[in-house]
Amino acid sequence: MSLTVYLAGEIHSDWRDDVERAADGLGLRFTAPVTDHAASDDCGVAILGAEEDKFWHDRKGALLNAIRTRTALEEADVVVVRFGEKYKQWNAAFDAGYAAALGRPLITLHPPEHDHALKEVDAAANAVARTPEEVARILRYVVDGRLP
Amino acid sequence: MSLTVYLAGEIHSDWRDDVERAADGLGLRFTAPVTDHAASDDCGVAILGAEEDKFWHDRKGALLNAIRTRTALEEADVVVVRFGEKYKQWNAAFDAGYAAALGRPLITLHPPEHDHALKEVDAAANAVARTPEEVARILRYVVDGRLP
Amino acid sequence: MSLTVYLAGEIHSDWRDDVERAADGLGLRFTAPVTDHAASDDCGVAILGAEEDKFWHDRKGALLNAIRTRTALEEADVVVVRFGEKYKQWNAAFDAGYAAALGRPLITLHPPEHDHALKEVDAAANAVARTPEEVARILRYVVDGRLP
Amino acid sequence: MSLTVYLAGEIHSDWRDDVERAADGLGLRFTAPVTDHAASDDCGVAILGAEEDKFWHDRKGALLNAIRTRTALEEADVVVVRFGEKYKQWNAAFDAGYAAALGRPLITLHPPEHDHALKEVDAAANAVARTPEEVARILRYVVDGRLP
Amino acid sequence: MSLTVYLAGEIHSDWRDDVERAADGLGLRFTAPVTDHAASDDCGVAILGAEEDKFWHDRKGALLNAIRTRTALEEADVVVVRFGEKYKQWNAAFDAGYAAALGRPLITLHPPEHDHALKEVDAAANAVARTPEEVARILRYVVDGRLP
Amino acid sequence: MSLTVYLAGEIHSDWRDDVERAADGLGLRFTAPVTDHAASDDCGVAILGAEEDKFWHDRKGALLNAIRTRTALEEADVVVVRFGEKYKQWNAAFDAGYAAALGRPLITLHPPEHDHALKEVDAAANAVARTPEEVARILRYVVDGRLP
Amino acid sequence: MSLTVYLAGEIHSDWRDDVERAADGLGLRFTAPVTDHAASDDCGVAILGAEEDKFWHDRKGALLNAIRTRTALEEADVVVVRFGEKYKQWNAAFDAGYAAALGRPLITLHPPEHDHALKEVDAAANAVARTPEEVARILRYVVDGRLP
Amino acid sequence: MSLTVYLAGEIHSDWRDDVERAADGLGLRFTAPVTDHAASDDCGVAILGAEEDKFWHDRKGALLNAIRTRTALEEADVVVVRFGEKYKQWNAAFDAGYAAALGRPLITLHPPEHDHALKEVDAAANAVARTPEEVARILRYVVDGRLP
Repeated sequence: MSLTVYLAGEIHSDWRDDVERAADGLGLRFTAPVTDHAASDDCGVAILGAEEDKFWHDRKGALLNAIRTRTALEEADVVVVRFGEKYKQWNAAFDAGYAAALGRPLITLHPPEHDHALKEVDAAANAVARTPEEVARILRYVVDGRLP
Repeated sequence: MSLTVYLAGEIHSDWRDDVERAADGLGLRFTAPVTDHAASDDCGVAILGAEEDKFWHDRKGALLNAIRTRTALEEADVVVVRFGEKYKQWNAAFDAGYAAALGRPLITLHPPEHDHALKEVDAAANAVARTPEEVARILRYVVDGRLP
Repeated sequence: MSLTVYLAGEIHSDWRDDVERAADGLGLRFTAPVTDHAASDDCGVAILGAEEDKFWHDRKGALLNAIRTRTALEEADVVVVRFGEKYKQWNAAFDAGYAAALGRPLITLHPPEHDHALKEVDAAANAVARTPEEVARILRYVVDGRLP
Repeated sequence: MSLTVYLAGEIHSDWRDDVERAADGLGLRFTAPVTDHAASDDCGVAILGAEEDKFWHDRKGALLNAIRTRTALEEADVVVVRFGEKYKQWNAAFDAGYAAALGRPLITLHPPEHDHALKEVDAAANAVARTPEEVARILRYVVDGRLP
Repeated sequence: MSLTVYLAGEIHSDWRDDVERAADGLGLRFTAPVTDHAASDDCGVAILGAEEDKFWHDRKGALLNAIRTRTALEEADVVVVRFGEKYKQWNAAFDAGYAAALGRPLITLHPPEHDHALKEVDAAANAVARTPEEVARILRYVVDGRLP
Repeated sequence: MSLTVYLAGEIHSDWRDDVERAADGLGLRFTAPVTDHAASDDCGVAILGAEEDKFWHDRKGALLNAIRTRTALEEADVVVVRFGEKYKQWNAAFDAGYAAALGRPLITLHPPEHDHALKEVDAAANAVARTPEEVARILRYVVDGRLP
Repeated sequence: MSLTVYLAGEIHSDWRDDVERAADGLGLRFTAPVTDHAASDDCGVAILGAEEDKFWHDRKGALLNAIRTRTALEEADVVVVRFGEKYKQWNAAFDAGYAAALGRPLITLHPPEHDHALKEVDAAANAVARTPEEVARILRYVVDGRLP
Repeated sequence: MSLTVYLAGEIHSDWRDDVERAADGLGLRFTAPVTDHAASDDCGVAILGAEEDKFWHDRKGALLNAIRTRTALEEADVVVVRFGEKYKQWNAAFDAGYAAALGRPLITLHPPEHDHALKEVDAAANAVARTPEEVARILRYVVDGRLP
């Protein structure tokens, strides 16, 4: 079983590298949103021209990012969503809801202090992991049936 | 055109009443999650028995709430999601993502200070409203074609 | 058989009234986009606040109109699309494509001089009518099995 | 992320070549309708026999073209629709509507003078580009996350 | 349980009346194609104008009939298809295939001499009935749980 | 919120009556398979004629029952599946899997001694209830937001 | 554009070979039902054991054949259905209906004397071909845009 | 025709090896759940941490197993479900129901003594096989059209 795994959510730490390293050798295909924060914020105006109004500056960028993230969500066999320490991260929760509605198996990755706030999201997930290594172990088990 | 409108998100202010009052006479059917915060948190254990572990206490409740919220999202012609001042509100963003994946028209309701953090969610929305009255005016226009 | 019929396209003539009058007594439910051209153009800024840039002025309005038109397309059993004499009418063709992708039976209504330009759209249609009365006769036949 | 991109719409300029050249090296797969106007008009009767009536001459051809265009729309990860200077181009708008109903990310390509007439179509699009190079830059960003 | 039952296929005998009479009192809603053979053949040209070519005369009519039959197939909870003694009845088999692809429960109604020729169709059916009364008894059992 | 609730599974105790009595006043619509065991076993041959082979005797009946159960599963907003003390009850688990694939919210009802054997089924459920009264309390909470 | 083409219908002439030969070099992938009539009739009992009753003998075989034909219909980009001179060929019409409900582009292949009897089927088709060579020319045009 | 075949159900005998050996040379791709019973029971707590309560111990594991089994069911062209001699095997029946709702062709594999208890499941299946060799012969026939 070969899986495409979409690593959604937080873009301000190296958690994606950690998952990919720990899952090395499993033959998985990983996808991700654009993780360069500045590029992700400004792509719309950088490509399609400046906007006076910050609201539409943001809209132009978010719509371009959506081409990538929606395609990745549709293509994914498994969706992992990381909730980190910074920012509101509503787009992470939005991606989790989108994945749930598509019926994609969902793994959330967050520290226990977010458990109560994320209970609705976690209730739609197949697993709540605490570390990237746990995510990799889940993927290894799903693909190979091997426990750590 | 008669619409079923699901009012998702924040449960700690009277915004739902404000929308419904301002939309009076339009013949709309409004649905909502359970808005009694304590009931929403404890429904699982209150009905199905106590849990030692807070994590599973929350899971039991969230799964019961999902019966109502998923049914409401599926039934809705329009989904309104309110992001308020308090809490993380990841479930609001989750519902918005779920609605977007189902192709339901989406209206977000939040103050301008959340615009940047909500840009991905707003980019999936048909409208970003600032007040319950604006939501009602949108619904009036959709149903009757009348402007304020 | 009771049908919901969405009358899409041209908003600058009385063709909808003509169809409805000619189909009187059939028990059909007709839906339509907002046919007040000025309201349709300005609804976004009238409800949600002015925009400096005409592009976003238009976007705000078009997104509100889409709440109504998409809901109507989804609900419709039959979609009639009228191509008139004025304007580009790309939104009429857009609605026809949307209806075709949803598998809704489609009736186009236009004069013969548009036949060649509309051949791709007509090829997706169950009928090409020339007058509102022909549309009504089709609906009468579909519902009652009676010929004129 | 490897994408299949359907380049729909205008067939009387070299815009497809321009997009493909500017997107060189991205590993994209491009599809298109038949762009030989005469072949596209006459394919039905050339293969299946002449028709006396121009209406059915056109119908036969349009139905053959639809085999290719519907397959391409279904297969596409991204749909680009070009509205040019000539003809009514209702089939371009039809394809845009079809793509929107399928949930395919949509990029429109047209000069600003069509903005108002295309506002409903643009409101369903992730981006409104003005040049083939902008389209290619968007695709580059979606695939590689790199800005120009 | 209230059912909508589409009675497809043969239009040259009174079998629909027999089913409806035998199912009297069950509160079922029955739908059917247009059963006036002449109207069904000529509806296209009668409403939309004559055709020189019989092929297009037939096409115009068949496309109008499809508005009714497809809507009825989509709406039906159960589809009954009658194969009679006369004609090729390919449209009956077409409707059965259409119903099967939609996942509608299917009941075929035909004499034993057609069993071998209809084995692929029957294999997609929930029941093969020999008389309209058997069809009615099936519907009674489905609705009321009562055996004859 | 008005719900249609399909009560699947065990047909040898009065649990359906217990749920319906305890949910009295909620305005729910309950559906169920045919609960007369003998009728359910023999309906096929009773209506459509005897079979020598018990295998086909069973097949004929099971296909008739499927008309009712599939329709009920499709129509249901919530599916409750009861696993009782007797028989293999594979059809109860089959219905649970069918409901899960359709995305219907699922409530299982069984004693704790089946917990391990039912863990895959329960993992797809929103709630595991022990008594009909618990099922009714869940439905009351979903509809009214009221805790016991 | 690489297509998978399902060649359904008549199994008593060499029309499939003719299509494949005439389409040589296009890189198409062709699928077909089992065309060995005896095997197709008897596969059920040959593999799973004899049946006394011819009806169930046929059912067992038809259900095995359906594994292949349904998979082929689902996988196909284009479905060609041949109606020949012999037998009732209801399964050909059934496959056409199934393909139409799935939205697969459909090409029918039959002599003009069947035109009236097949008008409902042809009205769901993108082309009505008279010879295998015409089918191949259509496929060539769809793939390459080249006319004969 | 190349098929992906999901071998669901019993994990306490070598039946999967028997099917794969007997189907050697057909170019099939076989998938399966994790067949190490202990790993399948304990994967949740082994990867994500121990649970005091056996109910949640089981839930954690079942949710991980569901990532694999649901993905395998979605990917499969054919689903084979084996009902063995031991245990309740409700998850086998659950998988059969899930496959049926997805429209996947289904083959059941069980001894005749389960026929009556499995009649609802078998009625949704294309074949009821008694041995792994029969399953392989069915797959050979589906792929190659060859009888044993």
